[in-house]
Amino acid sequence: MIKHKIITIDTKGNCDIINITELVEKEVENSKIKDGICTIFVKGSTAAISTIEYEEGLLKDFKNFMDKILPKGNYEHNKAWNDENGHSHLRSTLLKTSLQVPIINGKLFLGTWQQIVLIDFDTRPRRREIVISIYS
Amino acid sequence: MIKHKIITIDTKGNCDIINITELVEKEVENSKIKDGICTIFVKGSTAAISTIEYEEGLLKDFKNFMDKILPKGNYEHNKAWNDENGHSHLRSTLLKTSLQVPIINGKLFLGTWQQIVLIDFDTRPRRREIVISIYS
Amino acid sequence: MIKHKIITIDTKGNCDIINITELVEKEVENSKIKDGICTIFVKGSTAAISTIEYEEGLLKDFKNFMDKILPKGNYEHNKAWNDENGHSHLRSTLLKTSLQVPIINGKLFLGTWQQIVLIDFDTRPRRREIVISIYS
Repeated sequence: MIKHKIITIDTKGNCDIINITELVEKEVENSKIKDGICTIFVKGSTAAISTIEYEEGLLKDFKNFMDKILPKGNYEHNKAWNDENGHSHLRSTLLKTSLQVPIINGKLFLGTWQQIVLIDFDTRPRRREIVISIYS
Repeated sequence: MIKHKIITIDTKGNCDIINITELVEKEVENSKIKDGICTIFVKGSTAAISTIEYEEGLLKDFKNFMDKILPKGNYEHNKAWNDENGHSHLRSTLLKTSLQVPIINGKLFLGTWQQIVLIDFDTRPRRREIVISIYS
Repeated sequence: MIKHKIITIDTKGNCDIINITELVEKEVENSKIKDGICTIFVKGSTAAISTIEYEEGLLKDFKNFMDKILPKGNYEHNKAWNDENGHSHLRSTLLKTSLQVPIINGKLFLGTWQQIVLIDFDTRPRRREIVISIYS
């Protein structure tokens, strides 16, 4: 038994990191499921889903890290499309677009400092669709 | 209710990136499932599953990125086995071997430019087994 | 039908890589499930789950790689908390805390050299909770 919920989220792009933990928790509560799994997925090829301690300093650190290993630059993709988001695509392939979290006793089994985040690597504001899938 | 399909794929190795989206879509159609989840998994320790915009320029960019952060070289693993694929293993551990995509209204919920790919990091052609698991 | 098993594991921290394949296999056997999926998840924001060939040389290579791309250092997170584990958090966000492995004919569908590992990136010994979730 699977319940999907599609949620639309507006982002600023440029490694915008959005805390979606409460949104996901709300769907888990609404589902009334006690024991299950929650899959979080983002549609698109320049975004990702992961977890992070949602603290301002660490968010900056993550952006700095991404700028270090995958900076904006002269990617082949940019030449092909006269585009500038080659690095955004590579970051998404590396971080990936899905994550699973167990549901135990009706709650997401997360650590205190472990928040679920949508990361938008694109170079402009985007309207994103994420899917919260709950199954038991 | 889970349906597994094991599919064998021949690769060229050396960061060969194979678009498996149509293969996965076909299994989703065959399953007749309207709402579910699809897990894609690759057996082995020198390959990975992720998504990417399947465009020639970007595929080159991904290979260049992997060569930059995890080049061929003098890894401890290579000394242990008189082997040369230490970097292939590390790339697989980093990118990981599983991915989930929601199935909504009988279709994979993917972006237009978001293709599912098998990436073979090994240093020689390989025969790979992937598993497409569909559940509802 | 989902069965969760929470297991406590003591780690040494500092990129301690622990082979949990046998623990997971045991739960799969206990479940008596022939065809299903196993999700492995670690609670916390400074750890990860992935697969690797569990060989001493390669474990060193992985640690060296992590030290290269995400060394200990002066992260904003460390200033905020007078802490020293900014790099541990970033490594966890990059590697992620969940993994799926298909169960086929009552066995995890893993390669011969593909072991499931808990990686603890924190800077001190930790008591970790992992969840093995099996569904069919």
